[in-house]
Amino acid sequence: MQMKVIKTVAEMKNFVRAVKKTGKTIGLVPTMGALHKGHLTLMKAAKEKCDIVIASVFVNPTQFGPNEDFAAYPREFESDCAKLESVGVDAVFHPEAAELYPSHYTAYVTVDGDITSKLCGARRPGHFRGVATVVTKLFNITEADHAFFGQKDAQQVVIIKRFVRDLNIDVAVEMVPIVRAENGLALSSRNKYLSVAEKKAALVLSASLKAAKEAYTNGEKNVAVLKSLLTKQIQAEPLADIDYVEVYSFPDLEEIETVKGQAIIALAVRFGKTRLIDNAMIGE
Amino acid sequence: MQMKVIKTVAEMKNFVRAVKKTGKTIGLVPTMGALHKGHLTLMKAAKEKCDIVIASVFVNPTQFGPNEDFAAYPREFESDCAKLESVGVDAVFHPEAAELYPSHYTAYVTVDGDITSKLCGARRPGHFRGVATVVTKLFNITEADHAFFGQKDAQQVVIIKRFVRDLNIDVAVEMVPIVRAENGLALSSRNKYLSVAEKKAALVLSASLKAAKEAYTNGEKNVAVLKSLLTKQIQAEPLADIDYVEVYSFPDLEEIETVKGQAIIALAVRFGKTRLIDNAMIGE
Repeated sequence: MQMKVIKTVAEMKNFVRAVKKTGKTIGLVPTMGALHKGHLTLMKAAKEKCDIVIASVFVNPTQFGPNEDFAAYPREFESDCAKLESVGVDAVFHPEAAELYPSHYTAYVTVDGDITSKLCGARRPGHFRGVATVVTKLFNITEADHAFFGQKDAQQVVIIKRFVRDLNIDVAVEMVPIVRAENGLALSSRNKYLSVAEKKAALVLSASLKAAKEAYTNGEKNVAVLKSLLTKQIQAEPLADIDYVEVYSFPDLEEIETVKGQAIIALAVRFGKTRLIDNAMIGE
Repeated sequence: MQMKVIKTVAEMKNFVRAVKKTGKTIGLVPTMGALHKGHLTLMKAAKEKCDIVIASVFVNPTQFGPNEDFAAYPREFESDCAKLESVGVDAVFHPEAAELYPSHYTAYVTVDGDITSKLCGARRPGHFRGVATVVTKLFNITEADHAFFGQKDAQQVVIIKRFVRDLNIDVAVEMVPIVRAENGLALSSRNKYLSVAEKKAALVLSASLKAAKEAYTNGEKNVAVLKSLLTKQIQAEPLADIDYVEVYSFPDLEEIETVKGQAIIALAVRFGKTRLIDNAMIGE
């Protein structure tokens, strides 16, 4: 079956109703396009779990701040479609902004508390309100049974799981492990922005995470010590400019002094104008 | 069939799934209980339009301000059930607060702009966030095809229709006309709070609306003049204390100087400790 390209909500509702009538399950993978192997891993996870897979490709304006890279964000829909078709995606939803945000648009989904006030939530005001809003809309439009998100945006996944629970949305949210290049760099659409030198420098993210995980495995449970190890290693890279280096409990993102239970090491670091994030889980 | 009383989300999902499998449609009537004939009119409208009718009876804590009447709000679940059963409601959803707002609850639906910043939205901060949140939850829990709300809470209906559109929720929202006692008083669960003298004084609400409608029908389109007529008539009642007297375009609730198109006359007036609202539509 050829992949359908769907541009309007009405057309998607028709597609979804036809699928639901057959009793088949729907998997949704929301993306902003500029697809890499990380995204395709999400598509494959969806194919394994669900009968029908819908990918969305939509650069969502409400999750970008006024000084962020909304206009510059890479848009390459044709090559995205070729990639999606190659992994067997059934339909791609690619609406115009005005289709999702019509005139007099005023409703938003907000998530308060520890899980939004820290990390990227603290640095990007309104970002997670935009994410929660567009993901809620996509859940409602596609009536997905399962939805798949990458662990690279771990805070995003925590927030999505929270509002899905709180608003009683009937979808199972799955977090899929980070996909890395052979040299360790976590795949990201924003890697395209990096110069050759910055791309090399960015390896300090995965290298420092690996070193911190090893320190933890060797018995270092003190959060201040782990953060200091990470910070020193990243600061030793001249092109790296730290935004945050944090270790929090997972998934509640609470402050901890010692690693008990599961925790997340989360990094945000600028290389030139490009801000990259990466993370690793420790404990259990 | 005997009416089902359902206390948990899980049990309601089972009920809803069984209904959906048969292809029947679901009508939802959200209430806070203390049911009167206005509510029962909503139930009857739902029965006419839908195969299966679910009523919810839930005094929603998130829509009451800290100085409002949450604790005092009338709760009379047994007599409510008798009334619901008498009009053929199929299931009543009556959860505990902790069932809808579990530990670490942090997600809300917000609606910004003219439609929330005026009238009751201006006087009751957070009220419509609480309404939008609980109604979203009830839509998701019951998977309602149609939902029924009374015109007495006209601003609430406008806000619900807005977030349903904006968040792509698949439910048809119906506004049912105000039900009045023979003497003209709009039915409200809060009428129970009124003393005999206050109840008599409260007739000024419907009387002034009727007079303003007549003035409009006789050619008076000037909003300032209409508001002045209303205000004078209400102020002539010694027990009435005006909260607001407004005329806005409907459903956008925009300021107007002259009535063109459809408009709403909206009143909120205190009688002793009890704040009552009432409204009427003019124009078309």
